[in-house]
Amino acid sequence: MATLQDIGVSALINLFGAFLFLIAFAVLRIQPINDRVYFPKWYLTGDRSSPRRTDGTIVGKFVNLNFKTYFTFLNWMPQAMKMSESEIIRHAGFDSAIFLRIYTLGLRIFAPAMVLALGVLVPVNVSSGTLFFLKKELVVSNIDKLSISNVQPKSSKFFFHIGVEYLFTFWACFMLYREYNNVANMRLHYLATQRRRPEQFTVVVRNVPDIPGHSVPDTVDQFFKTNHPEHYLCHQAVYNANKYAKLVKQREKLQRWFDYYVLKYQRNSHKKPFCRTGFLGLWGQMVDSIEYYKQQIKEFDHSMSLERQKVLKDSKLMLPVTFVSFDSRWGAAVCAQTQQSKNPTLWLTSSAPEPRDIYWENLAIPFISLTIRKLVIGVSVFFLVFFYMIPIAFVQSLANLEGLERVAPFLRPVIRLDFIKSFLQGFLPGLALKIFLWILPTVLLIMSKIEGYIALSTLERRAAAKYYYFMLVNVFLGSIIAGTAFEQLDSFLHQSPTQIPRTIGVSIPMKATFFITFIMVDGWAGIAGEILRIKPLVIFHLKNMFLVKTEQDRERAMDPGFVDFKETIPSLQLYFLLGIVYAVVTPILLPFILVFFAFAYLVYRHQIINVYNQQYESCGAFWPHVHGRIIASLLISQLLLMGLLASKEAADSTPLLIILPILTLSFHKYCKHRFEPAFRQYPLEDAMAKDKAEKETEPELNMKADLADAYLHPIFHSFEKEVESSSSSSEEEKHQEETPEVRVDKHETQSSTPVTELGSPSHHHYAYNSTSPSHYTTAYEQSSSHYATAYEQSSSQYEYNYETQRYEEHEYRYN
Amino acid sequence: MATLQDIGVSALINLFGAFLFLIAFAVLRIQPINDRVYFPKWYLTGDRSSPRRTDGTIVGKFVNLNFKTYFTFLNWMPQAMKMSESEIIRHAGFDSAIFLRIYTLGLRIFAPAMVLALGVLVPVNVSSGTLFFLKKELVVSNIDKLSISNVQPKSSKFFFHIGVEYLFTFWACFMLYREYNNVANMRLHYLATQRRRPEQFTVVVRNVPDIPGHSVPDTVDQFFKTNHPEHYLCHQAVYNANKYAKLVKQREKLQRWFDYYVLKYQRNSHKKPFCRTGFLGLWGQMVDSIEYYKQQIKEFDHSMSLERQKVLKDSKLMLPVTFVSFDSRWGAAVCAQTQQSKNPTLWLTSSAPEPRDIYWENLAIPFISLTIRKLVIGVSVFFLVFFYMIPIAFVQSLANLEGLERVAPFLRPVIRLDFIKSFLQGFLPGLALKIFLWILPTVLLIMSKIEGYIALSTLERRAAAKYYYFMLVNVFLGSIIAGTAFEQLDSFLHQSPTQIPRTIGVSIPMKATFFITFIMVDGWAGIAGEILRIKPLVIFHLKNMFLVKTEQDRERAMDPGFVDFKETIPSLQLYFLLGIVYAVVTPILLPFILVFFAFAYLVYRHQIINVYNQQYESCGAFWPHVHGRIIASLLISQLLLMGLLASKEAADSTPLLIILPILTLSFHKYCKHRFEPAFRQYPLEDAMAKDKAEKETEPELNMKADLADAYLHPIFHSFEKEVESSSSSSEEEKHQEETPEVRVDKHETQSSTPVTELGSPSHHHYAYNSTSPSHYTTAYEQSSSHYATAYEQSSSQYEYNYETQRYEEHEYRYN
Repeated sequence: MATLQDIGVSALINLFGAFLFLIAFAVLRIQPINDRVYFPKWYLTGDRSSPRRTDGTIVGKFVNLNFKTYFTFLNWMPQAMKMSESEIIRHAGFDSAIFLRIYTLGLRIFAPAMVLALGVLVPVNVSSGTLFFLKKELVVSNIDKLSISNVQPKSSKFFFHIGVEYLFTFWACFMLYREYNNVANMRLHYLATQRRRPEQFTVVVRNVPDIPGHSVPDTVDQFFKTNHPEHYLCHQAVYNANKYAKLVKQREKLQRWFDYYVLKYQRNSHKKPFCRTGFLGLWGQMVDSIEYYKQQIKEFDHSMSLERQKVLKDSKLMLPVTFVSFDSRWGAAVCAQTQQSKNPTLWLTSSAPEPRDIYWENLAIPFISLTIRKLVIGVSVFFLVFFYMIPIAFVQSLANLEGLERVAPFLRPVIRLDFIKSFLQGFLPGLALKIFLWILPTVLLIMSKIEGYIALSTLERRAAAKYYYFMLVNVFLGSIIAGTAFEQLDSFLHQSPTQIPRTIGVSIPMKATFFITFIMVDGWAGIAGEILRIKPLVIFHLKNMFLVKTEQDRERAMDPGFVDFKETIPSLQLYFLLGIVYAVVTPILLPFILVFFAFAYLVYRHQIINVYNQQYESCGAFWPHVHGRIIASLLISQLLLMGLLASKEAADSTPLLIILPILTLSFHKYCKHRFEPAFRQYPLEDAMAKDKAEKETEPELNMKADLADAYLHPIFHSFEKEVESSSSSSEEEKHQEETPEVRVDKHETQSSTPVTELGSPSHHHYAYNSTSPSHYTTAYEQSSSHYATAYEQSSSQYEYNYETQRYEEHEYRYN
Repeated sequence: MATLQDIGVSALINLFGAFLFLIAFAVLRIQPINDRVYFPKWYLTGDRSSPRRTDGTIVGKFVNLNFKTYFTFLNWMPQAMKMSESEIIRHAGFDSAIFLRIYTLGLRIFAPAMVLALGVLVPVNVSSGTLFFLKKELVVSNIDKLSISNVQPKSSKFFFHIGVEYLFTFWACFMLYREYNNVANMRLHYLATQRRRPEQFTVVVRNVPDIPGHSVPDTVDQFFKTNHPEHYLCHQAVYNANKYAKLVKQREKLQRWFDYYVLKYQRNSHKKPFCRTGFLGLWGQMVDSIEYYKQQIKEFDHSMSLERQKVLKDSKLMLPVTFVSFDSRWGAAVCAQTQQSKNPTLWLTSSAPEPRDIYWENLAIPFISLTIRKLVIGVSVFFLVFFYMIPIAFVQSLANLEGLERVAPFLRPVIRLDFIKSFLQGFLPGLALKIFLWILPTVLLIMSKIEGYIALSTLERRAAAKYYYFMLVNVFLGSIIAGTAFEQLDSFLHQSPTQIPRTIGVSIPMKATFFITFIMVDGWAGIAGEILRIKPLVIFHLKNMFLVKTEQDRERAMDPGFVDFKETIPSLQLYFLLGIVYAVVTPILLPFILVFFAFAYLVYRHQIINVYNQQYESCGAFWPHVHGRIIASLLISQLLLMGLLASKEAADSTPLLIILPILTLSFHKYCKHRFEPAFRQYPLEDAMAKDKAEKETEPELNMKADLADAYLHPIFHSFEKEVESSSSSSEEEKHQEETPEVRVDKHETQSSTPVTELGSPSHHHYAYNSTSPSHYTTAYEQSSSHYATAYEQSSSQYEYNYETQRYEEHEYRYN
């Protein structure tokens, strides 16, 4: 166990490490060449289209030559604090703003708790001094002198600890209540002030029954016309588009090659690019690349439009899922919240997630399979959490030196070298564990996908829950009690329920120094690493050097990433747990937690403003989980404190603690009743108010046109976008330079309600309400033939525009 | 421990006891004088208005003189089986029919299980014979030779037991699934074919917010007009009518005295009855009783109409609860299932229970208090279940001889008698326990009332749940493990979780004989006592002798009672638990269970057809609980079998059982998803279908008139009924004799949609939809002044009719 001095040294080292990261960040971020790594969000919002330059020279385009800026290396901090919360909501979305509130909640809970604990408990602990006298016999650190370990058994001083635990719990609950209230109100306000969006009017219906002789659209149409006659508007069938998705991918590849060769030709206009048609371009006939790919794309577009037609027409490829739209928010809210059919496994309705939040692959899972899937995954998660060492041990046993020699005998001379041997022996087993922990979030996400949730946001929340269990058992309990989780489970099964908190409680104060070190290494240094974005930085520059062929590729190489809620939130919850458990036991841990929360808040605020671009908007749907797990941490801390006090034979005072978990649980129940519905359901009052307000401002609204294909599989949109982008790219590029605002609107429209710009929208807003299926098909054929023509036109125009456009751009960038 | 012979003897004794009960029942039921005790249901349905007579003589009116009927003493059994299920539903309600299905479910589960267990396990157990050889050392009964105890530890024969447990679980789940499916379909069908009833159109809204300057009706009206504009019809406010209820009670008393004196006068028409006005009629002024009570009633009616007016006008007496009616079932279903307000603690909507199912006192409980109440009751139930011996021991310590002497010193000489002393010493402590167990269901019901549920059916279900927990811990576990529940809890807390099933499992086979005796005493004899109805029989005859003054009183003295679900269903579930646990362990218990189920089925079928009159109709809402607790029993049996086998060191076979609880739980989850919504929510599809069908048959329906005061507090109806009955009793009595069908309709109308018959209904269908409160009040004053006049008229008419009517009746009965 470390003394205070050791921890001081460790803190200094970690602070120095974090400081180095920050210096590196300060230098790297002001280089224009890194601009797309550290400020991608501004490119995406359209506020910036090329790196800021301090100098007009060529070198100034890549390196920052204004040396003054190097000395203000922390000025990103005040910059990060400048933006107000409402601006963050507008700029980065509601989820990001709410995510930041987790950190401020941590600060608000732990700052007064630290003052209280350090002010009251540390003097009490120090003055008690059992360990002080036993020093020579026991190996006891200075830290333990400040912790509850220092208090003599049966001491009446434990009343102080219990009192502080009560105060701390009340304070934490008060802050939790205030925050839940704020977040719930903010969410309702956000929903109320949101612009018209398709998800407000749409309900996803699963398990549409298969009525023989009726197609899915007919069944749906009839059902909703009967049961929601006043508000039903139209619906969007969901297609099994796997084959089509493959074609779209291939076409994109062709398009990239085409762009590449055109670019190559422009750089070397005297030499026409040629390529071979065979495998990987290694053999086969020599052809003119540009002509070849143009031809290929044309053929592809034809076969794609055929396939597209086939998918949309073939009723066998239609899944028993549909997006039903209503003419009012009220109608959609009613349909989402009610039970439709007398068979509760049919016609399952729920509010539709926003289009970009949908995980299309899971839409077709039938009801009975969902129960089985959840059971299987539940059992798997249990085994993963408690027995995760078994597969790793297995891999480790394979990945030892003998195994390596067997698999790759030619490596034998190398492996036999002493240096390499010892390195491998130390390294391989650890590597297996590292790889496992690294892929764990992905594995958990895949498990959640198997469970069959249809929204990405739900999937991430489920994965986060699993990750939290894993960390709770393996990081928290696993560090406190030596041995694997499986061994713990086994020993818990053979202990009495009252013994378990005692066993854990006793070890808790002894592990304080370990967790302080953990907070510094994983928390402080980890966050400093987060702001440096080493991985995206390296990947961006590698891509820039080797892969970027066109400006579009550069756009693609710019990877803003997103706050990975499924990993970040559980980690954060672990810090909450540590703070809450140690607040009373070893209060000296609290300052470290506070520094972590403050630093992480600044860093994530900066990252959210400048870097990350969230994939979807769940309107803070993760808050109930954040709240619930902090409550769970409170309960764990109370239980462990009870166990700890019981082991200290503080029989007078321990029973006082029994009321606390009951109060905490009731508080949780109350909050659940009071606030959770705001995150689950759309209240009719709000829906009606918004409907009315809209009707007054826009009485002549053609809702149907807006909603018709908002929920078309994105794969169908991507084809349209492809066509569209090629036809309109020339104008768009210019727009970007002149009026950034226009670009913003454009972008948002594309991601939320993609409107195709080819022809009038009415052309592919299929006549859903028509009762005859033939009409339906006809409308489709018209629209797709229209596409074909439109594409022909646009691509010839494209060729014409292309040369001048790309050329100008090329000049602009590299001259 | 008993041998097979002992059990045989015990069975014979119990069979003989049950036989005696049945003989007594057979004799008593055919006496005309007991007709209202054993066949009250037929009086209530109107099929019978006077006892069946076999003989025209005066004696024949009281005693059955047809001696042939005495010899067919079991002929109630085939009679009970005659009625089909659909007839039972029509005759006794849906709840009763579903209640009977619990017994048939028991028969269906246990009959094949018995064949299997007796056919397979008993030979296996007998052939194993450990105990057979150890006979001399161990005190082992013959029953144990047939049980699992007889199998040697580590024997591979346990595979048979595990196999049978698997088969039995699968069979039980299959039957449970089928039955749940049947019941859910029957319920939906019943709801779909039900006549128009107010609860189909009504939603109960709790926590109406208090908006300053607006009265509750205004707020409600505005809210629902805004948020449910298309379907909102009207609403019924709820008043705090405690004072008025008191007046109603007093008036009823006066009315009874009035009736009594009138009757007296008729019997002795030459002597006018007089009475004193003072306390208990012991002193004070002598007055003409008839005149005096007539005057009193008149004054009372005046002050009642004033009070009534006051209650209905005073906005302070209006509770923040209201019954909101819609013009369609669809509208009501939508409102009940959706969230109304952005504050989820306001405007809480749920489907209204039927009017006679409402527990009015709980309607005013605010939301925050509900959480606290549930918490307090939850904790209390926990203590009641585990520490119920403490208050009893306390009472017992008071109720010993010394305590009695202290409290009542004058009893000392009596108590000092040896005989009395020993009797009291043996009797008093037991009495305290008996009284406690006797009042327990009532206590549990009161606890449920404190929890704040607003429907009687819910209250009973909650009380049943608590009773089940009590019996599970104190009867089942308490019998298996010696010691009080508290001692068990203490020992469980100090045992490891894997040790608990082992501890219980080991004792299980040893307690088989106890439970067999329990089944015979509590089950067989208890059920035979049930059919005899000793308590109602005695009370009816006592009332008949001393209290019955008028024919109306005789009607009142006839107490059909009702199936007390809150006591019967948990007891039944205990039998299921016993059967399921012992099916594999001691299969010889199964025949006893089967006899119980068969016999109880017959008895309850008879009682439901001839006696009981349910207070309300919950449409089988208790079935999910029945299903859930049978599943819980399966889980308990699996766990205990695992513990038992572990203690038998059957290490090869025990792990095979681990899968079974997981499968059972998933089955339960699936059933919950699949069937439970049918018991919770009214599907929109059904609502719409029923609305449409009704609109076609009755296009010009005045819904508002039907619904206007269906949900008026019954206290207000009772006043109207009082008035009504006095005015229309003369015609009604005759109707009863001539056309029983008319009477049926009349009765049903009264209990479900009470329609007042004074004046046209429109008079007190207050103008709810008017926006000005003044209009509201005026309508009221009109209606109540109307009442006053109507009453005057009716009571004078009443006097006129009374003499002839009562006189005729008197003649008819007693001459």
